Amino acid sequence: MTASPPAHDPEPPARRRGRPPRTESAGTRDRILAAAREEFSARGYEKTSVRGIAKAAGVDSALVHHYFGTKEQVFEAAIEVAFAPALNAPEAVAEGSPDAVGERLTRFVLGIWENPTTRTPLLAIVRSAVNNDTAAAVFRRLVAAQLLRRIAAQLELPDAELRAELAAAQLVGCAMLRYVIKVEPLASADLEQIIARVAPVVQGHLTAP
Amino acid sequence: MTASPPAHDPEPPARRRGRPPRTESAGTRDRILAAAREEFSARGYEKTSVRGIAKAAGVDSALVHHYFGTKEQVFEAAIEVAFAPALNAPEAVAEGSPDAVGERLTRFVLGIWENPTTRTPLLAIVRSAVNNDTAAAVFRRLVAAQLLRRIAAQLELPDAELRAELAAAQLVGCAMLRYVIKVEPLASADLEQIIARVAPVVQGHLTAP
Repeated sequence: MTASPPAHDPEPPARRRGRPPRTESAGTRDRILAAAREEFSARGYEKTSVRGIAKAAGVDSALVHHYFGTKEQVFEAAIEVAFAPALNAPEAVAEGSPDAVGERLTRFVLGIWENPTTRTPLLAIVRSAVNNDTAAAVFRRLVAAQLLRRIAAQLELPDAELRAELAAAQLVGCAMLRYVIKVEPLASADLEQIIARVAPVVQGHLTAP
Repeated sequence: MTASPPAHDPEPPARRRGRPPRTESAGTRDRILAAAREEFSARGYEKTSVRGIAKAAGVDSALVHHYFGTKEQVFEAAIEVAFAPALNAPEAVAEGSPDAVGERLTRFVLGIWENPTTRTPLLAIVRSAVNNDTAAAVFRRLVAAQLLRRIAAQLELPDAELRAELAAAQLVGCAMLRYVIKVEPLASADLEQIIARVAPVVQGHLTAP
């Protein structure tokens, strides 16, 4: 597959042949997704365009539309990739002692924010969700259905969903103040010190009577 | 003072006369500030223009520049007005029993978010701070210096600033998930139920040994 198909050709040549060279088309798709994550991250949902994503990926816009469809669909795909690390949170919560579920979840979530590679796409989601209703709906659906409800299901307690959301609220707020707004001393505090303070709160929300 | 001074006249007539009619100029200034809050709220910092604020207020752009200066300065003025209710939080924390400081702060902050009149400008600040570094710096300065440090000063405990920030993180996260992203069941939950769950956490952050 070429990186730049003819400008007015909505279908890239490889697909037309029926069987695209698997590794190369996967590579192009991944490159577009990576570019989409960076564009959404840098500009937010509203100011990102399919044209801009295509340019950053070094491909024609038609190829972006071919693989993903509309801008909203590119965003959804980018979000799901960006969210992939977070989607393991329910497993992190499930494994091990119930008494340490708060620490496991706190360590897991702040670990994702601490790492620039996983933070950048998360920041893109937060920025977009705060500013745009379409993006907020995608975020809400993904977070509620794939993350909070799965964590809640493992708690087997009354109000499990509200519990998971209040725990998430503490973690979301920490991430906002530490990594986005960068309020001091929280922004520069040692991660272990924050975990020590926050984990008992998360534990309490999740499992306290 | 006229609502529409000549387009290329940087100074409105009233000021030039030395003594502006006090009530009318205060009214115009307030109308510009109210329009600025609405514009920043609806569009965020980056997409708001002085021209747009002037149009919404029914005045000429020159009058906006005359009263406030640059767009950043209009934003700072709008933020300070929007933040005025929140700036009473340290007093709310200070009055009454130290054992109920968590509940007072929680009730105070969520009360501001619960009321659409006070929520709209706060939402504007959050949206802008998440998206724009200039806006984030204004927010950080205001929140850190005027709010969190004043609350911390009343705690008279080690790590008082970090304590205030972690308490704020729980409240910021609740506001984000309930009022901005609108995750259910948190978004529709009874306010008193949320206060009952969140207040002990805020109390713990602020005063636990």
